[in-house]
Amino acid sequence: MDLLKQRILQEGIVLDGNILKVDSFINHQIDPILADEIGREFYKRFKDMKIDKILTIETSGIAFALFTAYHFKAPLVFAKKYPGKNISDEIYSSRVYSYTKQKEYTISVSCRYISSGDRILLIDDFLANGQAILGLIDIAKQAGASVLGAGIAIEKGFQPGGKILRNQGIRLESLVAIESFNDKKIIFREEEK
Amino acid sequence: MDLLKQRILQEGIVLDGNILKVDSFINHQIDPILADEIGREFYKRFKDMKIDKILTIETSGIAFALFTAYHFKAPLVFAKKYPGKNISDEIYSSRVYSYTKQKEYTISVSCRYISSGDRILLIDDFLANGQAILGLIDIAKQAGASVLGAGIAIEKGFQPGGKILRNQGIRLESLVAIESFNDKKIIFREEEK
Repeated sequence: MDLLKQRILQEGIVLDGNILKVDSFINHQIDPILADEIGREFYKRFKDMKIDKILTIETSGIAFALFTAYHFKAPLVFAKKYPGKNISDEIYSSRVYSYTKQKEYTISVSCRYISSGDRILLIDDFLANGQAILGLIDIAKQAGASVLGAGIAIEKGFQPGGKILRNQGIRLESLVAIESFNDKKIIFREEEK
Repeated sequence: MDLLKQRILQEGIVLDGNILKVDSFINHQIDPILADEIGREFYKRFKDMKIDKILTIETSGIAFALFTAYHFKAPLVFAKKYPGKNISDEIYSSRVYSYTKQKEYTISVSCRYISSGDRILLIDDFLANGQAILGLIDIAKQAGASVLGAGIAIEKGFQPGGKILRNQGIRLESLVAIESFNDKKIIFREEEK
C-alpha cells in the first residue's frame, strides 16, 4: 500500500532493537484519513468473505480495526490488556509474550462478545513475532469461532510471525512488509501480497 | 441524541456504584456505525470552531474521537494511560484520580503532538467527576494550547464533572445526560444542550 509506505518513509523512525516508531500517525497521534484508507483496503482484500466480527487488541489496533469494521458494517471487539474492575462477565483469555516489552501479559474477551460459529477477521497494526495474533486465535478457538484471516498494517518480514501464521494456514494480508532495517534505513519487501 | 439514548435503554446495564455498563457497543464491543454517527454529531456541534486537533484518553475514548477527527479532517491524539517502553520523547503529564477504580493514575502526551497555539477539542465517552477531562485540560495548558470545547457521549448529570467544567467556562456538549439511576432504571435529563 503505497500511501502507507510513503508515510513510513517520511515519518517512521527506526530505533534500536528493530523498533519502528510510527507514533506520529499510528501509535499516539492518528491520522484518521489514513486510518480510513487502511480500513477500506482491508475491506477490499477480505470482502469476498462473510465476516461477522472484527477482533483486535487495545490500544494501537483499534483505529484500523474500527474503520475496517465500519466498511464491513460489522461490530468490532477489542481484546483487553488492562481489564477494568467492572468486567464481571465470564471471559476467554490467553497469555501473550511481548518480545518488545520482554514480558508476558494476559488478553481477554468477554464470552458475551464472541460466539460459537462467528466468522472473525483479525486486524492489528504490527506483526513481528505473531504472539498477539496467536493469542487472538486462541481466544477465537475457545469460543468455537473461526478466524478467516488476519489483516496487518505493517509486517516485520524479518521476524517469524508472518511465517508462523502462513504455516498455520491463516490467510494473512499485510499492507506493507519490511524486509530489513539496514543501518536504520527502511527496506520494504518487494511484493507484499 | 436519540439514537444513543435508545441504545443505552436497550443494552445498558446499571451496576452498583452508579456504573453504567455499555460494553456491548462502547467499551469492549464497538458499533462502528453508531461511533460514526456520534463523531458526526460532535462535528456538527463544534464545526463553527477551527479545530486543529482532537484529544482523548485511551482506550474507550478513541472510537468516538477517531470519527470526530475524521469529520474534522484533523489528527487525533490519545493521551496514554499505559506508557510503552519506546516513548523516549519529552512528555506532558498529569495525575488523574479515578473514582470508579479508586486510584490515581498518570496520563501523558508526547510534547511532539501538542503545540503552543493548537486549538483543541476534547472527546470522551463518559463524564462523571470530570477528572480525566481536567487532566487533559492541564496537559493542553502545559503545552500552551487552547481547549475550545469538550464533547462527551454520556454525561452522568448527577455527578459533579459537568458543573465543574461549565463553571470553568468550558463549552461542554453532552450527547446524552443521565439524571439518575432510579432503582437501576435509567432516567435521562430532559434537554441536553
